[in-house]
Amino acid sequence: MVGFGTVGQWLARALIERGPDLMERYGVRFEVVGLANRRDGFFYREEGIDLGAALTVAAKGSLRELPDVRRWPTALEGMRATDADVLVEVSASPAPTGDPGRSHLAEALGRGIAAVTSNKWPVAVHGVDLDELARRQSAPFRAESTVMSGTPVLSTLREGLAGASPVAVRGVLNATANYVLSLMARGQGYADALAAAQRKGLAERDPSADVDGHDAVAKSMVLAALVFGCQLRLDDVMRTGISSVTEDAVSHAIAQGLRIREVATLERSSSDGSSLVARVEPVALGADDPLARIDGTDNALVCRAEPLGEVMIVGPGAGIELAGQGVFSDLVNVAHYS
Amino acid sequence: MVGFGTVGQWLARALIERGPDLMERYGVRFEVVGLANRRDGFFYREEGIDLGAALTVAAKGSLRELPDVRRWPTALEGMRATDADVLVEVSASPAPTGDPGRSHLAEALGRGIAAVTSNKWPVAVHGVDLDELARRQSAPFRAESTVMSGTPVLSTLREGLAGASPVAVRGVLNATANYVLSLMARGQGYADALAAAQRKGLAERDPSADVDGHDAVAKSMVLAALVFGCQLRLDDVMRTGISSVTEDAVSHAIAQGLRIREVATLERSSSDGSSLVARVEPVALGADDPLARIDGTDNALVCRAEPLGEVMIVGPGAGIELAGQGVFSDLVNVAHYS
Repeated sequence: MVGFGTVGQWLARALIERGPDLMERYGVRFEVVGLANRRDGFFYREEGIDLGAALTVAAKGSLRELPDVRRWPTALEGMRATDADVLVEVSASPAPTGDPGRSHLAEALGRGIAAVTSNKWPVAVHGVDLDELARRQSAPFRAESTVMSGTPVLSTLREGLAGASPVAVRGVLNATANYVLSLMARGQGYADALAAAQRKGLAERDPSADVDGHDAVAKSMVLAALVFGCQLRLDDVMRTGISSVTEDAVSHAIAQGLRIREVATLERSSSDGSSLVARVEPVALGADDPLARIDGTDNALVCRAEPLGEVMIVGPGAGIELAGQGVFSDLVNVAHYS
Repeated sequence: MVGFGTVGQWLARALIERGPDLMERYGVRFEVVGLANRRDGFFYREEGIDLGAALTVAAKGSLRELPDVRRWPTALEGMRATDADVLVEVSASPAPTGDPGRSHLAEALGRGIAAVTSNKWPVAVHGVDLDELARRQSAPFRAESTVMSGTPVLSTLREGLAGASPVAVRGVLNATANYVLSLMARGQGYADALAAAQRKGLAERDPSADVDGHDAVAKSMVLAALVFGCQLRLDDVMRTGISSVTEDAVSHAIAQGLRIREVATLERSSSDGSSLVARVEPVALGADDPLARIDGTDNALVCRAEPLGEVMIVGPGAGIELAGQGVFSDLVNVAHYS
């Protein structure tokens, strides 16, 4: 497990608490042999690291207090010197490169080690390469929580629709933006609505990721890579954030029976089926549009696929617990189905 | 492939047409080595049966005209005498036993052969046993199309929510019933609405399966078995069909701002978490209920799971092409992910 922040620690607690249930329901048992964070380095114990102890020393300040472990200065050095069945990549790996997560994922998959991640940027920017590497090495690669958190979207679109051809995707993919727009629809001003989202712990420290559309752009790029097999660059996605939505625009939309939502859209371009047109923007949706009804912190995604038609998935879109659950389901799938 | 009716023949055409795409996208190639129907028996050719020829002779009347094949009188005898990597079970296998599908599935899974099926009754009545047999033999067992046709529900609830605990499920699971209720909400009488559904090719020959709730009961039992691991008997599911819904009841509901839908409900009983309370019945839903908005032939399912919250899946619920797509996705998953 590389990264031991909020998601990593949630996972550690879940593995402790749900261990007996996992054994009973799936016949699998997880042992964390390597644990890393950026500050303290990579720690390894072949017989398994005591996760309770790891949570305790992390709360006190440093993983260096872990007993009976070998240490390497960085995750990558530690990974190269040791072995595991699966990498859980939950380090902080921001845009524009998605590093260090990208290099950890590439290291694991390149050695045929399964990998799961909650990091959207490595998958957004390098998803097609990572997915191809995984396929070449017959190593499962899953990133469920990168889009709509714990709501199963990628497994639905990749496994559930296997053999069908996705044609287009539309989604409400950022919980903060949707929460802000939902409050504005009830008459709150933009600044007040954003402050409410921040008090609720929704908006990231820098709200720009949410209100300027960067987060939804990353999720669109993940969908492009893992569902359509198409690698987009940041500049390929037209982006307009909800910070451009005025209170007048919201009340004007409501007067016309419309609802403004931040919508991410991916469509195969008509001229060339292999490339995608992608955009993230506030859209005034008619009341009949199922995305218009997605309220508060819910997220939703509508996928049009041949020969199926339209499938919609709705679920909660934000929260550490939900991101953790997405990684957890990836882990169970890797262990149980591979 | 056991069963060569509408779903089996759709699959044969799909395997011919999408063969190159499957190889390119997933690196898999399917060869049908055994083909059976109830009337003509089981036909086997180790090098693969020509599916184009099979479609042609089937259209003319009998699989016995297939060239270069060995024949056994029944599917079960043929299966026992031959080998394959996966069974596609698409024979007619009705209530109350789900045979012959059940015995075909048990034969394959018992030998460690993967099995996929579009047959709801074998899974409804014997799903827990079949699933346990599959797990014991490490043989994939998938039945995506048995609930909501090609809309990925079982893969979402089984793989997507892996490691989470489903607590309750509510669904609009019968396309005919929903179509009839949708037309009645627009002022049509019950008999006219049912006739329209039959003209549209929706209602099965005996509409009782749809309008008396039997179909939704079977799907509820499939969900109970494969999502909750709980084997229900037919009598365990309280059942009230939509044939009991009067035109007065519909207009009364609409006057109150409600919508009547046939709702299948599964809930863990409060006294004993391991058993389920299950019912299928017409319910007058408030406008805020997401199931109230499911119109026409769409189906929908809302699953409450811990620690996730509510996840909803909406998609088309009826049609040979959709059932075929469900089996097709199961096949790709078995080949690609196992």
